[in-house]
Amino acid sequence: MPAPHPLTPLLAPGSVAIFGASNDPTRISGRSLRYYREAGYQGALYPINPTRDAVQGLPAFPDLAAVPGPVECAVIAVPANLAIEAMEACVAKGVKAVVMFTAGFAETGPEGRVMQERIIQIAQGGGIRLCGPNCLGLFNMRAGHTPTFSSFLEEGPTPAGPLGMVTQSGAFGTHLLALSARRGIQVGIWLSTGNEADVSVADGISFLADDPETTAIACYVEQIKDGAQFAEAVARARANGKPVIAMKVGGSAIGAAAAASHTASLAGSDAVYDAALRQLGVERAKTPADLVEIAYACTRGRLPRSRRLAVVTMSGGAGVLMADAAEEEGLELTPLAEESQKEVLSWVPFAAPLNPVDVTAQALNDPSILDKGFDLLLGKENFPSMVGFFTTWASSPQMAEPLFRSVSSAAARYPDRYFALSAIASPEMQRRYEAAGVGLFEDPWRAVAAIAAAVRCAERLAAAPLPVPPVPRDLPPLPKGPIGEYEAKRILAEAGVPILTEFLATGAAQAASGAAKVGDRLVLKIVSPEITHKTEVGGVMLNVSAAEAGAAYDRLVERVKARAPRATIDGVLLSPMVTGGVEMILGVQNDPVFGPVVMLGLGGIFVEVLRDVTFRIAPFGVEEAHRMIAELRGAAILEGARGQPPCDLDALAAALSRLSLFAAAKCAEFTSIDINPLLVRPKGEGAAALDALILASDGTA
Amino acid sequence: MPAPHPLTPLLAPGSVAIFGASNDPTRISGRSLRYYREAGYQGALYPINPTRDAVQGLPAFPDLAAVPGPVECAVIAVPANLAIEAMEACVAKGVKAVVMFTAGFAETGPEGRVMQERIIQIAQGGGIRLCGPNCLGLFNMRAGHTPTFSSFLEEGPTPAGPLGMVTQSGAFGTHLLALSARRGIQVGIWLSTGNEADVSVADGISFLADDPETTAIACYVEQIKDGAQFAEAVARARANGKPVIAMKVGGSAIGAAAAASHTASLAGSDAVYDAALRQLGVERAKTPADLVEIAYACTRGRLPRSRRLAVVTMSGGAGVLMADAAEEEGLELTPLAEESQKEVLSWVPFAAPLNPVDVTAQALNDPSILDKGFDLLLGKENFPSMVGFFTTWASSPQMAEPLFRSVSSAAARYPDRYFALSAIASPEMQRRYEAAGVGLFEDPWRAVAAIAAAVRCAERLAAAPLPVPPVPRDLPPLPKGPIGEYEAKRILAEAGVPILTEFLATGAAQAASGAAKVGDRLVLKIVSPEITHKTEVGGVMLNVSAAEAGAAYDRLVERVKARAPRATIDGVLLSPMVTGGVEMILGVQNDPVFGPVVMLGLGGIFVEVLRDVTFRIAPFGVEEAHRMIAELRGAAILEGARGQPPCDLDALAAALSRLSLFAAAKCAEFTSIDINPLLVRPKGEGAAALDALILASDGTA
Repeated sequence: MPAPHPLTPLLAPGSVAIFGASNDPTRISGRSLRYYREAGYQGALYPINPTRDAVQGLPAFPDLAAVPGPVECAVIAVPANLAIEAMEACVAKGVKAVVMFTAGFAETGPEGRVMQERIIQIAQGGGIRLCGPNCLGLFNMRAGHTPTFSSFLEEGPTPAGPLGMVTQSGAFGTHLLALSARRGIQVGIWLSTGNEADVSVADGISFLADDPETTAIACYVEQIKDGAQFAEAVARARANGKPVIAMKVGGSAIGAAAAASHTASLAGSDAVYDAALRQLGVERAKTPADLVEIAYACTRGRLPRSRRLAVVTMSGGAGVLMADAAEEEGLELTPLAEESQKEVLSWVPFAAPLNPVDVTAQALNDPSILDKGFDLLLGKENFPSMVGFFTTWASSPQMAEPLFRSVSSAAARYPDRYFALSAIASPEMQRRYEAAGVGLFEDPWRAVAAIAAAVRCAERLAAAPLPVPPVPRDLPPLPKGPIGEYEAKRILAEAGVPILTEFLATGAAQAASGAAKVGDRLVLKIVSPEITHKTEVGGVMLNVSAAEAGAAYDRLVERVKARAPRATIDGVLLSPMVTGGVEMILGVQNDPVFGPVVMLGLGGIFVEVLRDVTFRIAPFGVEEAHRMIAELRGAAILEGARGQPPCDLDALAAALSRLSLFAAAKCAEFTSIDINPLLVRPKGEGAAALDALILASDGTA
Repeated sequence: MPAPHPLTPLLAPGSVAIFGASNDPTRISGRSLRYYREAGYQGALYPINPTRDAVQGLPAFPDLAAVPGPVECAVIAVPANLAIEAMEACVAKGVKAVVMFTAGFAETGPEGRVMQERIIQIAQGGGIRLCGPNCLGLFNMRAGHTPTFSSFLEEGPTPAGPLGMVTQSGAFGTHLLALSARRGIQVGIWLSTGNEADVSVADGISFLADDPETTAIACYVEQIKDGAQFAEAVARARANGKPVIAMKVGGSAIGAAAAASHTASLAGSDAVYDAALRQLGVERAKTPADLVEIAYACTRGRLPRSRRLAVVTMSGGAGVLMADAAEEEGLELTPLAEESQKEVLSWVPFAAPLNPVDVTAQALNDPSILDKGFDLLLGKENFPSMVGFFTTWASSPQMAEPLFRSVSSAAARYPDRYFALSAIASPEMQRRYEAAGVGLFEDPWRAVAAIAAAVRCAERLAAAPLPVPPVPRDLPPLPKGPIGEYEAKRILAEAGVPILTEFLATGAAQAASGAAKVGDRLVLKIVSPEITHKTEVGGVMLNVSAAEAGAAYDRLVERVKARAPRATIDGVLLSPMVTGGVEMILGVQNDPVFGPVVMLGLGGIFVEVLRDVTFRIAPFGVEEAHRMIAELRGAAILEGARGQPPCDLDALAAALSRLSLFAAAKCAEFTSIDINPLLVRPKGEGAAALDALILASDGTA
């Protein structure tokens, strides 16, 4: 038997005490107790109330010490000035987890932040896991455990369903719970994390990853505090076969500012979040409605096996619309075999038999067309997924029952298939379809989009995680301050990033004698720790012949001295003059959330005008690097657009992966790394960093 | 009094006859009559049924001739083989409009197409406007006029509301009607057009544009048959202050193929449709849900006055989300004045007072915060639009009434403002808000997106239509066949498209003597009717000095003769060698729907790799051309990115407009026009077509 998850005392405790439990079940301090009783909590439940013998019909205790048995979890709803005392009582009692509704901590300013720090210290000292403060709490409907005052439970307990939900905001979490319930999704476990003094969204995902009855996890994130912890939790969910769907807000400038004022900490770049979520295999939802629809699609008891989709419709227009949606979402409407098409036409002469299969309104007259159609598509044609458009038939007096009979029996005959309908039905009929394993969507576009999201989730779960090479451990320490081209390239080359054969000359004679080793045609570049923008001081000479190298050395040094008289000149770097290939820009930033993040862009207008860049959290392997390259809008340039030969994508991917390993190894020692450009040469000819700059951690540009 | 709209006999007739009216109100042939009676139609209603004296309680007539009074509109639901006879009876009776449900015409193949042609002839000969065949009919709930068998009316008549709807597909139209009704939108008039033998979606828009009680028009289009007619109808709606919202399907390859098989005609390019709808001022909705939400936002009795939006929320997370949505949708969350911010903080010390204004859950304790907040935002801060996030408060026993009181009284105090809520309410409460002029959205993102769509609609209605210069009428006819560079440029220059000073030399001596008139440095290009790709035969020489022009002439001709020995050589074109500026690609195609359509793209990778092009229907003026330029993803290149001087955008816009006027004037005479490249020089220095090719209508490339 595996060890229980560390959050078990918080999310599935055997005994609970409620500080400040009110006898009034409508008040914040009374709601949680009321919810426990309505949900049928089977553990020991102890209201703490110094002024009453009984609260809401349960015997009350004047303080925690007076509780006779052990207390695993405590709910603290007392005012902030009493919270520390309550925490200390919890430590004394041996409580393992606390849900703290109390506001007035870090979200209110410096004073509150100090109080929150004190609470954290007490919790850590006493071995208590703390949810909140300033949170709406959580529920686990499987256990009837309801330490929350969310108004979502006001209308009674919710059925313990397969979706797990973690939301940083409790108010917005309540909104998502309400939207989900209206959509017919049952949330078994919900956790709101508030100020995240201890327990984070990642902790919640981790618990849900282990919970055997949770099949999918939805979360709402304003900011991730610890990228590595988040990655680990998501990996755990993935290993246990559960899709994670996330909405991350704060992508806009005003949104980020609002998030910062709301949560008292700076939000990271949305582009980095977006790349990180993709890399981790999280399905990102843009809007609440999207989150709910994707969660709905992912909790139908199965996931689609592949991108092949059969569309069957009674309206040609809806078929066109769903074909549009499928193309946009990357689903494949493979056409029916000719024989199958003939079969469709034998039932309905004016049908469109290809896929979408438009059976027209003919099924109104002959509902057996539906049975035959479903058997053809799921049986003979063996489609893993099918979506049917039947509009108001699902609620029409004439067609509702025949349609349901036909659909539900097909779903029963093919229990491993993913079957969805776009139709308008009563809530009761909707529940009947869901019980038969068939999801209902009012909007046909949305039906296809949600199926596509479920396909992506299934694909991620089916694929093995991409391999990540080991991070090198024995690299020498980086020098301090800005590291210029020559040194930076040497360091990167050591880490496996390709560079050209180069030669550092410290005098004209040395340049003249060493030039031939480098090549026939050379580039000369000034080497000076003070000069980071070489071209601005005339510090670069292009296309110099090896024979002229000595004279060019002197001319170059003289020119730079005239323009930058105070710069120390360490010499001149001789590099081969290379032409052909595509220039890329590679960079690394140390992100406050995710640590070192590697950026890739195409040089020139792609980066400067189109901001066509993509990101990955370091470290990663070449497979991930190839995905990164393919994400660029201008990727076709590398694949040989405009009559150019295809580039050496493998060399680029290898360079990216090596850079990421170096960045992961050295993240404590640098602020940023730039390789601009990295020249990617034609296939088979490799790549080379033509210029590089490292800003070491104490460095200034 | 204005003349009645030509479609009045179809959409608001005083008398109606129903061919094949069945006594069974559940059958297709009985439904329409039942709907008429339930809707309380006040005109004369005549069931035609040769086998019964009475149908559904009304006296029936054996044939149309037997009807005592005049018949303005007839419903034909008889089988296809009887439809011609019925049409002929309509002509004899002086019927002005027919709604034909009957299927089995053009949608079934060549035979049906012939029958449909016959029906059209009869209708035209008799002065009858024909809706269908193969349609679900229409309704006008203001008149109780229901010539339809759509199941939408099965549950009783729908209230006559402000939205007008036109859908090519009747089945999908029924779905949209059902979705709209569930959303609380009342559709007063609906028209489905089926095969569009006569009456089209554009006709429907035109009627709704004139209908005084319709305030917004939604339509669903699979294909537009006549772009000019559609444009005219939309212009009419716009002139009458009504937004038009359209969903156009068939954008994908499979979708287009499905649309073609469904409607028996080829769909146009979606990119052209998209540009045309934008140019015409139509709000395009991508999904049915979008269409419904935008229609909802546009039928709240007013439209937003500007892009400024106030966001007020009880959840910080929702505020962040709505700020993200506002940025994506181009709405402006202008921050509150400092004094106003202080006022907010005086009510709620921990509020976020900037905008979004997060009043936190404090209003639970003190609902007067809401009144004060609304007054501050709509009064002192004078926001034209406001969206509030109040989640389940709208349905909570404690907050539902105080919230409604506060919101509805603010809406009444500021009746010219656009007020929306994101909240979860019962259908009854939803209706109460709507009656108070406040729209409700469950999803806060969607609320912002729908408001933004309403803003766009309002902006289009407020702006005067862009001026279109007159199309030139006195241009000489185009020569037949492909028109090469020299001639094409001359023709385009005549039409006002700028070209460089050029000189056509027919011999070396002439080249030598004429060169100086052209410039110091020249480009020489071969002129031959057979050679359209000059560089492929070595037919271009760059950067030739004027002094060398004679010798270069001979070398060029010799080179071309070697590679293309059979080509007639008319001479060599001498042009000035120009550098600097940005190369654009301009083109014109004759679109089957919209006529001549002008394309614009940036040369090089933008067109070839990124497919960064945009379109406009010809003719258009320079203002529209400027909008076109701004739509390019790479537009920053023209505005002076990467240290280049800004380009002469006015010259580019003028060239585009002139090209569009030429294309409109000559559309009957060409297949395509290409200007590749048009060089746009730095601001003030103009633009010039450097190469051009016209394919005249009988030409082959």
